[in-house]
Amino acid sequence: LGPEGVRVLRDTILHARACAPDVPIILDAKRGDIGNTSRMYAVEAFDVLGADAVTVNPYMGADSLSPFLERSDRGVMILCRTSNPGAGAVQDLLVSAGDGPLPLYHVIARLVAREWNTNGNCGLVVGATKPAEVAEVRSLAPGLPILLPGIGAQGGDLSGSVIAGLDEAGAGLLVSVSRAVLYADSGERYAEAAAASARRFRDEINSHRGTS
Amino acid sequence: LGPEGVRVLRDTILHARACAPDVPIILDAKRGDIGNTSRMYAVEAFDVLGADAVTVNPYMGADSLSPFLERSDRGVMILCRTSNPGAGAVQDLLVSAGDGPLPLYHVIARLVAREWNTNGNCGLVVGATKPAEVAEVRSLAPGLPILLPGIGAQGGDLSGSVIAGLDEAGAGLLVSVSRAVLYADSGERYAEAAAASARRFRDEINSHRGTS
Repeated sequence: LGPEGVRVLRDTILHARACAPDVPIILDAKRGDIGNTSRMYAVEAFDVLGADAVTVNPYMGADSLSPFLERSDRGVMILCRTSNPGAGAVQDLLVSAGDGPLPLYHVIARLVAREWNTNGNCGLVVGATKPAEVAEVRSLAPGLPILLPGIGAQGGDLSGSVIAGLDEAGAGLLVSVSRAVLYADSGERYAEAAAASARRFRDEINSHRGTS
Repeated sequence: LGPEGVRVLRDTILHARACAPDVPIILDAKRGDIGNTSRMYAVEAFDVLGADAVTVNPYMGADSLSPFLERSDRGVMILCRTSNPGAGAVQDLLVSAGDGPLPLYHVIARLVAREWNTNGNCGLVVGATKPAEVAEVRSLAPGLPILLPGIGAQGGDLSGSVIAGLDEAGAGLLVSVSRAVLYADSGERYAEAAAASARRFRDEINSHRGTS
C-alpha cells in the first residue's frame, strides 16, 4: 500500500520474470478510465511494472480501454462475469439486443469478440463459480482466451468450469488460483506447500483437458 | 507512475490538505474488485493516502464496493454516466426493468439511490457532456451528490449541466475541472493562471445556482 506497496509489486514481478521467464504475468489491476488517464495506466502496467497483460473494466466503453487495446504485443483481459457474490446485480441485468434480451455480460462478451478485439489481444474474465456461465461465454467468444478466477479460496467449480471453458483446441483457459496457493501453509514450509498446491491444481486442470 | 508516482500523489494530497483543510479531496481511482482486494484499496485510499472520497466502478456489484460503502465517514462516488466518447456503448444499453426499458446508467443510479447508499455516503459520477443525462440522474437520485467531470478540456456544457444537476436546495454538485486549471499556462506564471482559471470556473458555476 502506498509507495512501498508499488515497489514490492514491481520487485515481485521482476522476481517472477527471473524465475519463470516463459510464464505470462497478468496484472489484475481492473483499470478503466478516460483516455489520457488510461494511457498512463497502460504505461504503468506494461512499461513501468512490465506485465504481459492487465485486467480492465468495460463499464466506460472501448475508448477508455484503447491505450491497452492498442498494445498488440500485450494482453487485455476484460471483466465479463466476475466470481464475487454480488456481481449478478449488474452483470446479469437483461439488456434488449436485436435478437432478444441478453444478460449484460453476454453483451460485453459479444462487444469484445466482435468490436474491441481488433488487435487480437483481448481475453475475457469469467469467474469459475458457475460453469454454465463459462460455457455461455465460450460459445459467444469461441476464439478468446478466458481468464478463470474463483478457484480455491472462492470455492469455484474447477472441473465444471474447465470443461465448460476449453476452446476447440482444448486450450484457451488461464486458470487463476491465488489464495489457495499463496496461503497454502503459514508455517516454515510455506514455499513447499505453495508449490505442492500449485502442482495439484495444475494436474487437476490438465486431467480435464481431454474431456471437452 | 510506479513507487515514485504514489509518493508524489501522497505528497500532493498532504499539501492540498495543509493549504485548504476544508476542501474535500476526492481520489479519482475508479476502484472496484473482489472483497478482500477492495478492502485493501479502501485502506489505501482513505488511510494511507488520506482521501475524503474515492471514485469506484459499479460493474462488479455492491459487495465489490462494500469496504468503501461501510466507511460512513468517507464518500464513495460511483461511476454512472461518464463523459468519454465511447461510454454510451455500455452505459446506454437498454435494460429491461419492471417499469420498461431503461439505460444501464439509469439502473445504476437507482441501485445506488435505493440499495447501495445505506450509510448515506454515496454520490454519482455523471459527465457534463449531455445536460439531459445529468437531469435524468438528478431526477432518479434527488438526494445524492453528483460529481460532474468533463468541464474544460473535455468540452462539457457547464451552464446546462449545472442547471440540470442542482438539487432542490440549489446545491448537491461537485464540479470537477482538471486540465483546464492544471494546465492553464505552461510558463512561469502557471500558478497565477491556474488560480485565475479556477476562480473563473467557480464564479461561472455560482452564477447558475439561482436559476434552477
